[in-house]
Amino acid sequence: MPTYQPAVATTPHRNRDRVGYDRATVHAILDEAWFCHLAFVVDGRPASLPLMHARLGEDIYVHGSTGSGPLLAARQDGGMPVCLNVALLDGLVYARSHFHHSANYRAVVAHGMAEVVTDPAEKARALSAFVEKLGAGRAADSRPPSERESAQTGLLRLRLDQVSCKIRSGGVNDDPDDHGLPHWAGVVPMQLVAGTPTPDVNVVGSPPEYLPRR
Amino acid sequence: MPTYQPAVATTPHRNRDRVGYDRATVHAILDEAWFCHLAFVVDGRPASLPLMHARLGEDIYVHGSTGSGPLLAARQDGGMPVCLNVALLDGLVYARSHFHHSANYRAVVAHGMAEVVTDPAEKARALSAFVEKLGAGRAADSRPPSERESAQTGLLRLRLDQVSCKIRSGGVNDDPDDHGLPHWAGVVPMQLVAGTPTPDVNVVGSPPEYLPRR
Repeated sequence: MPTYQPAVATTPHRNRDRVGYDRATVHAILDEAWFCHLAFVVDGRPASLPLMHARLGEDIYVHGSTGSGPLLAARQDGGMPVCLNVALLDGLVYARSHFHHSANYRAVVAHGMAEVVTDPAEKARALSAFVEKLGAGRAADSRPPSERESAQTGLLRLRLDQVSCKIRSGGVNDDPDDHGLPHWAGVVPMQLVAGTPTPDVNVVGSPPEYLPRR
Repeated sequence: MPTYQPAVATTPHRNRDRVGYDRATVHAILDEAWFCHLAFVVDGRPASLPLMHARLGEDIYVHGSTGSGPLLAARQDGGMPVCLNVALLDGLVYARSHFHHSANYRAVVAHGMAEVVTDPAEKARALSAFVEKLGAGRAADSRPPSERESAQTGLLRLRLDQVSCKIRSGGVNDDPDDHGLPHWAGVVPMQLVAGTPTPDVNVVGSPPEYLPRR
């Protein structure tokens, strides 16, 4: 897969070595994250909110009530300029100096125009992808949306084009002069883990195999 | 503690029952989250990035290189309009219908003007708070910033004023008509957990007690 091309919006001011444009890496980060943050502009001021997302190829989708802020704002011709972020925390970095304390993370930022999805077939595919993301096979193992439910759900599409990822991994970057200091230094790995499923009332049978595992 | 007052920017269009203004709840969510997303406007377009944050009373701070995007943009008089988000994922909600799949989460959104911190005493307090957040006692157990390091670090302050929290918790909200469907329904709890600390080279002694525990 060819890489994404650097754009003005995705060219960093600093820490350039942490930034990349590899398509498979970007996809993997987007797919691992359960939610994103979508930033947009309302009356010249920034607005942003967390939303679940799903990716199909080079399109990323977020959904919400058709009456929610971004869904209303994106109705304009050509869509709405957005900045979509995903960030996964992988570790906390304890340096011998305050200055070099840091975090390990994998993040994606995507800029572009978010457009309201109106094509019924595309909408059906995307809404199914949200459910399928929660577990491979879940879309077939739950009731598809009625026409009314589908109409109540607003859906935005952002084409992955001005996209980059930013990754910090590894250990502590203390200055050599500080290596002799007596303070503990190292990394505490962090991970989002699934717990034991809690069934709803009247549910019989074991939790399905496709649920996220501990 | 009195609650925050609803503002135009923090009054929701939908799911009003999930939104609150309780100060202690907002503080707790901000303090539990290791990072936030900061959205701002550049040339009329939205920009957003993940940043670590620290709270001191009713001020929330983010830091970065003095040459980074938001730090440069905030230099204008009166600061820069921002939208700061924090979101903690608590669970994935599997409904019998596609439509009612959801997530449990705790989120905070704060709007306002982010200002560059120039007062040296405030800057020192805030930078120390970032390190202290990683473990109570860590600021004293690592080397404070030199003047040069402090000068290299840009710091933004956002006063908590136009703030709200949004919380979804509990179980599945399936329509009563769907309760007889054969699909498994329930909640998979999700939690960010700390792993086993990895010491840096040449570190002797056990990891300190103040590190986040598994």
